[in-house]
Amino acid sequence: MNLILLDPADLDASGQARVSDPRRLRHLREVHRATPGDSLTVGVRNGRWGTARLATLDDQAALFTELALDQPPPAPLPVHLVLALPRPRMLARTLEHVTALGVKQITLLHTRRVEKSYWQSPELAATKIHAHLVLGLEQARDTVLPTLTCETRFKPFVEDRLPGLLAGKQGLLAHPGMAEPCPRGSERASVLLIGPEGGFIPYEVECLLAAGCRGIHLGERILRVETAVTALLARLG
Amino acid sequence: MNLILLDPADLDASGQARVSDPRRLRHLREVHRATPGDSLTVGVRNGRWGTARLATLDDQAALFTELALDQPPPAPLPVHLVLALPRPRMLARTLEHVTALGVKQITLLHTRRVEKSYWQSPELAATKIHAHLVLGLEQARDTVLPTLTCETRFKPFVEDRLPGLLAGKQGLLAHPGMAEPCPRGSERASVLLIGPEGGFIPYEVECLLAAGCRGIHLGERILRVETAVTALLARLG
Repeated sequence: MNLILLDPADLDASGQARVSDPRRLRHLREVHRATPGDSLTVGVRNGRWGTARLATLDDQAALFTELALDQPPPAPLPVHLVLALPRPRMLARTLEHVTALGVKQITLLHTRRVEKSYWQSPELAATKIHAHLVLGLEQARDTVLPTLTCETRFKPFVEDRLPGLLAGKQGLLAHPGMAEPCPRGSERASVLLIGPEGGFIPYEVECLLAAGCRGIHLGERILRVETAVTALLARLG
Repeated sequence: MNLILLDPADLDASGQARVSDPRRLRHLREVHRATPGDSLTVGVRNGRWGTARLATLDDQAALFTELALDQPPPAPLPVHLVLALPRPRMLARTLEHVTALGVKQITLLHTRRVEKSYWQSPELAATKIHAHLVLGLEQARDTVLPTLTCETRFKPFVEDRLPGLLAGKQGLLAHPGMAEPCPRGSERASVLLIGPEGGFIPYEVECLLAAGCRGIHLGERILRVETAVTALLARLG
């Protein structure tokens, strides 16, 4: 953790902050090995970051004083990621990677080759998702939580929502065998669509191209989704 | 698995191949759900790849016939990766990522912030390393095994071996706060050095810059090593 993310509700009127949830208290003790008097890097969710003094730390709460929050969060990556729902274990890690890389809009999409059981995974509980997004922010020293949407039906998503998402943005369909290499350092805002292990089926590729997406590839190597997501965002960013 | 990697010793004089190790037999059954008669994608280590017919499959062996191996392996990534030894769990995944991305030379390096106990990990056993490299190749449909070297002392590596590795290549030291952004799509062969969680210490940065490396960064976000490795290779590639 390179930053301790505070909730605006953790702050009181006198400019102190009080953290009382078990996860952050455990992190303070086990990862930061923090002791009272330490100056730590903290940020306020969707706000600025900087330093604070840890005044007290016990089993119930940590109290921060001398908050000096003068740094804006790092620039976001102008990419809306539309990702076919990965298997639960990979979902957790992928959410942390993409949040650390600065993605602020994430859509998890059902496609033909997504196993339907994945949608019942406990990893999709709002508290679990939130925890992974926060870990990604704390890693990258960011404060701005991504928004995450689930789309459990492919066709209504493509027909009813995708045109709106593409307004003013380039749609990039990442799929092996497409004509164009992934653009490098694109300045334009993008919607990036990435299929599941095994890829989009041909019908889905047709629908997405017909909706106005450009097909892009990362070369002749076939990558795991987790590797491909980071590689595509790094090329685009 | 997008390819079944055969050892040259698996081939007999009549052009058939016989696989008898438990890992690949299990993969054939559980991942490929292969049955006799299937045409599968196979490659020969350090050689070509293509298709073969699965003639028989039982608990002891799989026999492949009709081998048609006419595809060369994908182009390697011209990057020698020098990576501070990651924690064992992350090492396993990282070896698979970087092999899938086409890296052919890997050096695992001791630095000040690498926990010494990591060098005793069972993950560093030659058979374990080999298994992760093979998984990376089978994922990316590659056949050319990377070479991997362990350097357990920083200073002798930098003074005695690094100058030789840098001959004819650019040395790139990836470290937060360096002056130059990571080059995009570099055509030049590179030696890419990446520190551990927590980074190189200032003394190590000085040594590597003095040895002729250029300092590069990936922006103001601090990434986990696993994310940074893939992102740097994707930018360079």
